[in-house]
Amino acid sequence: MGIVVMKFGGTSVGSIERIKNVARIIAKKRDQGHDVACVVSAMSGETDRLINLLKEIDPKFSPREYDQLVSTGEQASSPLVAQSLISMGYPAVSLTGIQIGMITNGVHSNSRIMDVKADRIKEEFKKGNICIIAGFQGIFPESGDITTLGRGGSDTSAVAVAAALKANVCEIYTDVDGVYTADPRIVKHAKKLEKISYDEMLELASLGAKVLQSRSVELGMNHNVDIMVLSSLEDKPGTLVTKEDSDMEQVVVTGVVSDKNQAKITIAAVPDNPGIASKIFTKIASSNINVDVIVQNVGKDGNTDMSFTVQKTDLLRATDVCNEIVKEIGAKGVLADENIAKVSIVGVGMRSHTGVAAKMFSLLAENNINIKMITTSEIKVSCVVEEKFSELAVRILHEAFVEA
Amino acid sequence: MGIVVMKFGGTSVGSIERIKNVARIIAKKRDQGHDVACVVSAMSGETDRLINLLKEIDPKFSPREYDQLVSTGEQASSPLVAQSLISMGYPAVSLTGIQIGMITNGVHSNSRIMDVKADRIKEEFKKGNICIIAGFQGIFPESGDITTLGRGGSDTSAVAVAAALKANVCEIYTDVDGVYTADPRIVKHAKKLEKISYDEMLELASLGAKVLQSRSVELGMNHNVDIMVLSSLEDKPGTLVTKEDSDMEQVVVTGVVSDKNQAKITIAAVPDNPGIASKIFTKIASSNINVDVIVQNVGKDGNTDMSFTVQKTDLLRATDVCNEIVKEIGAKGVLADENIAKVSIVGVGMRSHTGVAAKMFSLLAENNINIKMITTSEIKVSCVVEEKFSELAVRILHEAFVEA
Repeated sequence: MGIVVMKFGGTSVGSIERIKNVARIIAKKRDQGHDVACVVSAMSGETDRLINLLKEIDPKFSPREYDQLVSTGEQASSPLVAQSLISMGYPAVSLTGIQIGMITNGVHSNSRIMDVKADRIKEEFKKGNICIIAGFQGIFPESGDITTLGRGGSDTSAVAVAAALKANVCEIYTDVDGVYTADPRIVKHAKKLEKISYDEMLELASLGAKVLQSRSVELGMNHNVDIMVLSSLEDKPGTLVTKEDSDMEQVVVTGVVSDKNQAKITIAAVPDNPGIASKIFTKIASSNINVDVIVQNVGKDGNTDMSFTVQKTDLLRATDVCNEIVKEIGAKGVLADENIAKVSIVGVGMRSHTGVAAKMFSLLAENNINIKMITTSEIKVSCVVEEKFSELAVRILHEAFVEA
Repeated sequence: MGIVVMKFGGTSVGSIERIKNVARIIAKKRDQGHDVACVVSAMSGETDRLINLLKEIDPKFSPREYDQLVSTGEQASSPLVAQSLISMGYPAVSLTGIQIGMITNGVHSNSRIMDVKADRIKEEFKKGNICIIAGFQGIFPESGDITTLGRGGSDTSAVAVAAALKANVCEIYTDVDGVYTADPRIVKHAKKLEKISYDEMLELASLGAKVLQSRSVELGMNHNVDIMVLSSLEDKPGTLVTKEDSDMEQVVVTGVVSDKNQAKITIAAVPDNPGIASKIFTKIASSNINVDVIVQNVGKDGNTDMSFTVQKTDLLRATDVCNEIVKEIGAKGVLADENIAKVSIVGVGMRSHTGVAAKMFSLLAENNINIKMITTSEIKVSCVVEEKFSELAVRILHEAFVEA
């Protein structure tokens, strides 16, 4: 008995039939005696439909008008879920971002949540109502304007609501049934994790595992919200994302993940002056291009090669910017390589185990997989390899670190 | 130079192409130096699409959830119009009913406007912005809930905004280019009126002319808002709905209109006791059926026939209720007649001219059109006739009263 926050994505509410299924899952939770608040996304396809209308008018649309428009997607799906519950005999109300007091910092189309004034939800709980909340949206109180949290923001909405209500758990229902040690489509023996730490989940989320949005994990970690990842299609145990405990440390590698969405850029023969790296990456950042792995090769003749990875979708823009940089700083040229993948191992156990990175490098070398770039953190090691070796590398690493 | 409120219906914003056309009309008004606030309906078809989703879940849906859902239609069309203006170089913002402070009495799906706190619109005017306002919707401040004004409510939104801003004029753009002396599809010589009084427009609106919603005319009258009915497709003068003036009184009949959407019910041999009419019509009203014309025939043997008209869509329910009444009061039976039409002449000049009703009855009699029921007000005479005579009656009356 307590407060449970649930979240269902666009696919889960993609048709009236699926909406009714979601209502049954919520009703079951209610029957267990919990107060239930449920965050929903827009019906799948609806957000794209709205954005396409706007793009038809002008591909360079106003972020403010974008927010006023796309926020209607969640505002339409939530009353449909509420109505399904009402028709099943469960009192329910739908609530918009404004109505629940989802306060944001006012940045249009990519807002951060500042606060959730959950008074209205608590009032509705007192009346015995289930609350169905439009995800992805909030309000900037100074202007009264609607703001959205960026795509996938409904996960973050749900965790923020859970934090505000001090909920027992935030259950995220998706089309997979939990977090796996590797992508089961690549690794036959991938296992579902019973639990995983926030830190590990954060690394996995930013390394390409698409189960949860990174910002929702970060928010959960900061507010100590237990997040349960579950299937909306099958009734079986999921994966709990929670505080690190001593069990977790005994496992060296919790997950193996690969990301093919990256491309590598090399600026050749960069003059080796102080401040040159700063000059390059400031210019790239000012073009709103995110840089991931950066490697500076050992220089000779006072020159050095500077390599880094960007999202594949940013590659064209990034090479354009780099060509300008080459002219400015007198470097030799720009090389782009789309055929790469980043393969990573993640685990809090690495903190107390030595030689993990070395073992990873040996395993790849033994299998003739050449490492192009390396980057590490306290709890992860990533290697950039040729794209064609991506699946092989994941299988080798999973077998050696997880299955062993 | 001043403040102009405009309103465009669902057909006018039914596609991106039409939305761009609407933006051009608004921009032209802005170029004349006015501050412009423009109320828009949902894109045509969108409200029905949303209602059908809700009905698929439950035909007996919650009015509160209905409001949360259907209000998204106008909330989506308004940013599309705003974006079109922005892309043309005209600063614009879309605003929801909540954002403009459209305060209602809280009755879901059929609210009345209590107040418009137009501070936000005035602020945007100061910044030089055109305001594109989602029509049809408001907020009940005590609950923070979204409420809608009933179908066609965007006309009423527009007049309420015009009243709050003390606008020079409220321009209602539709697919006809003004108010005519009769339906031009029936009467060849029907003329567009340059102006018409609120009282006459109210009678015409409630008698079946579909140009303006009655409530918007009533609101315009109460707040002295000049309403201009115009075409969104052609740039030509429309009809001004305004205060009665001495010119208007010189015209006896301003318009001739027919309504085929009515049906007649007769309760035969009602015992002629005091209070019996009250008993009958209280019961009918409690079933939410609107009764229009009522006629009580002269009784014999202490009995009387009670006839009245209802909307055709209410006929089945009304006869069911009447059959119950017949049993309760010991009447003889219920007769229903769907093949009727109500033909009316309207004009403020009737106040100062005598013999208008008599002339109407004579004209109908001379043409062998039998009058089944009669009802009059200070500025109108309505006759219920057989449906097949409807067009003929309109033509005869228009020729005699308007063309003469």
